[in-house]
Amino acid sequence: MKLLTQINSPDDLKKLNIEQLQQVCCELREYIIDQLSHNPGHFASSLGTVELTVALHYIYNTPYDRLVWDVGHQAYSHKILTGRRDMFPSNRKLGGISGFPNPKESEYDTFVSGHASTSISAALGMAVAAHLNHEEDRHVVAIIGDGAMTGGLAYEGLNNACSQPNNLLIILNDNDMSIDHNVGGLREYLIKLTTSAKYNKIRYGIYQAFKQKKLIDEDKKNFIIRFNNSIKSLLTRQQNMFEGFNIRYFGPIDGHDLPELIRVLRNIKDMKGPKLLHIKTIKGKGYAPAEKSATIWHAPGLFDKETGERIIKRSKDQPQLYQDVFGHTLVELAEKNEKIVGVTPAMPTGCSMNYLMEKFPERTFDVGIAEEHAVTFSAGLAKEGFIPFCNIYSSFMQRAYDQVIHDVALQKLKVILCLDRAGLVGEDGPTHHGVFDLAYLRPIPNLTIAAPLNEHDLRNLMYTAVYGNEGPFVIRYPKGQGELKNWQNTMQIIPIGKGRKLRDGERIAVLSIGKIGNDAAKAIEKAAEIGIFAAHYDLLFLKPIDKELLTEIAQNYAYLITVENGVIAGGMGDAVTDFLTVHHYNDIRVRKLGIKDEFVTQGSIDELKHLCGIDEDSIFEAIMEANEVIKNTNKVNTIKKLSGH
Amino acid sequence: MKLLTQINSPDDLKKLNIEQLQQVCCELREYIIDQLSHNPGHFASSLGTVELTVALHYIYNTPYDRLVWDVGHQAYSHKILTGRRDMFPSNRKLGGISGFPNPKESEYDTFVSGHASTSISAALGMAVAAHLNHEEDRHVVAIIGDGAMTGGLAYEGLNNACSQPNNLLIILNDNDMSIDHNVGGLREYLIKLTTSAKYNKIRYGIYQAFKQKKLIDEDKKNFIIRFNNSIKSLLTRQQNMFEGFNIRYFGPIDGHDLPELIRVLRNIKDMKGPKLLHIKTIKGKGYAPAEKSATIWHAPGLFDKETGERIIKRSKDQPQLYQDVFGHTLVELAEKNEKIVGVTPAMPTGCSMNYLMEKFPERTFDVGIAEEHAVTFSAGLAKEGFIPFCNIYSSFMQRAYDQVIHDVALQKLKVILCLDRAGLVGEDGPTHHGVFDLAYLRPIPNLTIAAPLNEHDLRNLMYTAVYGNEGPFVIRYPKGQGELKNWQNTMQIIPIGKGRKLRDGERIAVLSIGKIGNDAAKAIEKAAEIGIFAAHYDLLFLKPIDKELLTEIAQNYAYLITVENGVIAGGMGDAVTDFLTVHHYNDIRVRKLGIKDEFVTQGSIDELKHLCGIDEDSIFEAIMEANEVIKNTNKVNTIKKLSGH
Repeated sequence: MKLLTQINSPDDLKKLNIEQLQQVCCELREYIIDQLSHNPGHFASSLGTVELTVALHYIYNTPYDRLVWDVGHQAYSHKILTGRRDMFPSNRKLGGISGFPNPKESEYDTFVSGHASTSISAALGMAVAAHLNHEEDRHVVAIIGDGAMTGGLAYEGLNNACSQPNNLLIILNDNDMSIDHNVGGLREYLIKLTTSAKYNKIRYGIYQAFKQKKLIDEDKKNFIIRFNNSIKSLLTRQQNMFEGFNIRYFGPIDGHDLPELIRVLRNIKDMKGPKLLHIKTIKGKGYAPAEKSATIWHAPGLFDKETGERIIKRSKDQPQLYQDVFGHTLVELAEKNEKIVGVTPAMPTGCSMNYLMEKFPERTFDVGIAEEHAVTFSAGLAKEGFIPFCNIYSSFMQRAYDQVIHDVALQKLKVILCLDRAGLVGEDGPTHHGVFDLAYLRPIPNLTIAAPLNEHDLRNLMYTAVYGNEGPFVIRYPKGQGELKNWQNTMQIIPIGKGRKLRDGERIAVLSIGKIGNDAAKAIEKAAEIGIFAAHYDLLFLKPIDKELLTEIAQNYAYLITVENGVIAGGMGDAVTDFLTVHHYNDIRVRKLGIKDEFVTQGSIDELKHLCGIDEDSIFEAIMEANEVIKNTNKVNTIKKLSGH
Repeated sequence: MKLLTQINSPDDLKKLNIEQLQQVCCELREYIIDQLSHNPGHFASSLGTVELTVALHYIYNTPYDRLVWDVGHQAYSHKILTGRRDMFPSNRKLGGISGFPNPKESEYDTFVSGHASTSISAALGMAVAAHLNHEEDRHVVAIIGDGAMTGGLAYEGLNNACSQPNNLLIILNDNDMSIDHNVGGLREYLIKLTTSAKYNKIRYGIYQAFKQKKLIDEDKKNFIIRFNNSIKSLLTRQQNMFEGFNIRYFGPIDGHDLPELIRVLRNIKDMKGPKLLHIKTIKGKGYAPAEKSATIWHAPGLFDKETGERIIKRSKDQPQLYQDVFGHTLVELAEKNEKIVGVTPAMPTGCSMNYLMEKFPERTFDVGIAEEHAVTFSAGLAKEGFIPFCNIYSSFMQRAYDQVIHDVALQKLKVILCLDRAGLVGEDGPTHHGVFDLAYLRPIPNLTIAAPLNEHDLRNLMYTAVYGNEGPFVIRYPKGQGELKNWQNTMQIIPIGKGRKLRDGERIAVLSIGKIGNDAAKAIEKAAEIGIFAAHYDLLFLKPIDKELLTEIAQNYAYLITVENGVIAGGMGDAVTDFLTVHHYNDIRVRKLGIKDEFVTQGSIDELKHLCGIDEDSIFEAIMEANEVIKNTNKVNTIKKLSGH
């Protein structure tokens, strides 16, 4: 690490020669491997962009020039080279640096990029701004993976890139992976482009020769490039789709060949107009286990850096992950019902739909990073009588909001929307917390919305969505470990819109929905131990909400505490106070626990639950406060209504 | 109309010869022109697809074969030919047939398609379903305009089309228009493809010749087509991007040449694998005024079919449209502040950003049908110090929900999100009502959300968003006519998050937000005339909500009526009851008026407001009921709190 320790900003990089820069790449890799072995993070992506990052900061004048990283977890080297080397051990921790670019953290970070496919649009905005500001010397570069390139937003950006004056450079970092293997037409297209590399090389050579001999000026370049591409098309029977967008295409080149990267970037840096450089990289480059299994090493958790063994702390006796319960249950259901199919936007491993994929490959659809398409495609399948389980992480479902409204709910199609990673997700931070879903789904008519308290609920809800319900069904469930030792119950139909009393109590009732109810149960138990008996109700369904149960609650308790792992505004607590108001249960005091009106930072899930006031201790304190309030009033258990209704 | 009156289903069409089919096209056109002259609807799109529709129903076995129309307003001929000719005069009216395909209305309508770009995904779902069901004889056809093709969802569908076995046919209906002229790289690409039509013809000719001589079988077709395309690429210096997606490309052909359409459709009908047929049509075809000005004639309103003159009922003395107030005000602001820019996804005329476009073309960005990109591109501009007014219809903003959360709100970027067409929009029906916005935006941190009562408010809010606020600012305002004769006030900064009392009252207070407040004012006036004095408060801001004002209201009134032109669940009414609960104002009765938990049908805005219980009469009745309730209780004006807080 003798060179890396001396680099405190890209200026220090610019003083080095090529050999030294290559040494920096080695040291960066070593540092990232070492760090991530004991502080987990996104591993393989960042190893793939080491040379690219060094080349970019070497060639460009950052932060005056703008680098926009698509899905920021390829940006660790960027962080380390821009003054955050010594902070890197705090990566993704509470109070530490973010795992994604964050403008609040550094002027080198231009844009928050937690969700894929945003970089072209954001960078185009910056490039157009540079043009309007007459800052023609400012360069803007978007760095986007081939996985992110399958997202509709990336295409909208590409389509718009030639419409206004700008000098945007898009770098397509092609490693044939998103988190899982990339899919779709674009992927096959890129593979073909790559296999025809020699024709590209010939073409690039011709171009360089012409340029060196000053035989072409800017205007003629277009002609030359198109001519070359046409020859290539003929020879390879392959078209260049980027040129179809009026974006000049260069590549593909080896993204781990630092001298070549520097040479090409220098050559195209000052060309006018939008352009795309296609580089080929290997996800996990430089660390053999990761090169072999890039999906597992996308975010491997702890590992032994010497042996490459992942350190999995969970023992066999511990509960399964909710993800695995979902995955195995889906197979179980699909075995008995051939109409059941699975749809996932690029997350078969993350959501454990890979089990279905192994068992019924023809009934499992990984559609790429394309949440909108995942939902509308599912709607098309449902229209023809199939029963799609469409699994999308809660925060990514925000991408398909319109499709849920129009293509599913309006048409009452039987699509089962499974929102994995609901609630606080931990280290990925504000872009990934699945805390908005209850609030943004509740206003949509025709949806049934449920959240399981445990694995048995999850299985019963999946079963009920198929056999006990017509129309769309939403199941939101959290990341991580379940609650039970034996998750394999016999599945049964749950009555739609029915909650349940989990525990009796006096004057105070806690209302929860989803896994957070387990924290509530512990807090209630703790209070009971000191003689304060709060009741516990699990709503299970946000929609339709259990009015009978709410009536029982309203008639029997003076103080309600609502608990949800989601935003308060518009969520379950609001649904409860709406019920109380509409049905004239005044005189009941309500305290809402949930995510307040601010974005939640990163940290462990436990830390964040505490920070947001929805952990066991916070719920316990809320019960104590409720008890104080009740002691201080005359009200015991009688309900006064404003009128006789 | 001698032929058209005999066609009650596509079966009747199949009995006719080519000349008769051409006669049907003439009669269809005549009927549509006649009908739409006195019952307004989407005019030009449907005239452009007459021949295509006849050809499709002639060649395909509908409804067994599936036609999926993208943005349904091209589907009038389809409706007329599939048993709804005599119902067509009820088009878009309350209780009548829908202006968009609607499976509830007819088995020939496969999918609701009010928002653009959904057809490929939905049709792919159906085509894959046919494959899984071993219904290899079932054909699925998606018909998509070149405008809709710029939407990211269409691309996600294209990218996924080659990934699984299916025989989907995509028909690209290319008229170089969305509602306004189409824009972007795809447009230029399509223009080039078209100008190279003769090469396509040669290629198609070669293919036909080969086929007739049985020189090619299915497997070899791919080779032939690619070879031909490669020759074309070389000759025209143009690439075929669809082939890049592994989708076979045919065309372009003249979409008004019925015999040619029938011939080509017949030829490609039974080819395996996904394919795309590119047809060129003229929006408004067959009606000269519409052919000349397709933007105006997209939905022209009433017109004299003989003269082609549009009948505009609004006199000069009447208030301006909110749209025009927005458009002129934006120019006024932009003249004084060069950082102000405008961004619209394909709606410059609809939202009146065309005024800015005329005055400052380089500062106005029509990005095509691409709401996600519009928001993220605006965020990029804002990051560099520009102040984008990003105008998107309320229901279309659902497409950019994730981008609003991450790319704008999380980063606190100063993007001014203008949600035009908020609230009930009338005849376009459930897909277009902008009724979810308040509910889906309220949970997002860092947003300021406001809705003007009138044109002066709109202008002041636009001014305040620029000069009186940092960070993102949402202004939602309705379609149609304003309230004031003189809209051109001197703009001033409004204090953020401050509402206002419009009228004093006793015991009862009406709380409204936005234009609907004018209906509330009339109802309150009517009640006052018979001695019942309800107060009126206009919140103006949903977020931050005016807690001081709400405290005043809570302390002085016993019965609150909240009125909003949006869904109740999660909206303004919920925000009010949340405030009352959290601040322990129990014992206040609240009635919430707004859109209940169901999708709202089509009809005039006045009819729908009545239907939803938010018109003047309904508000008046709510005041009367409130008065009865108060008379029946002892409560007058005292507030009891549960505790001393």
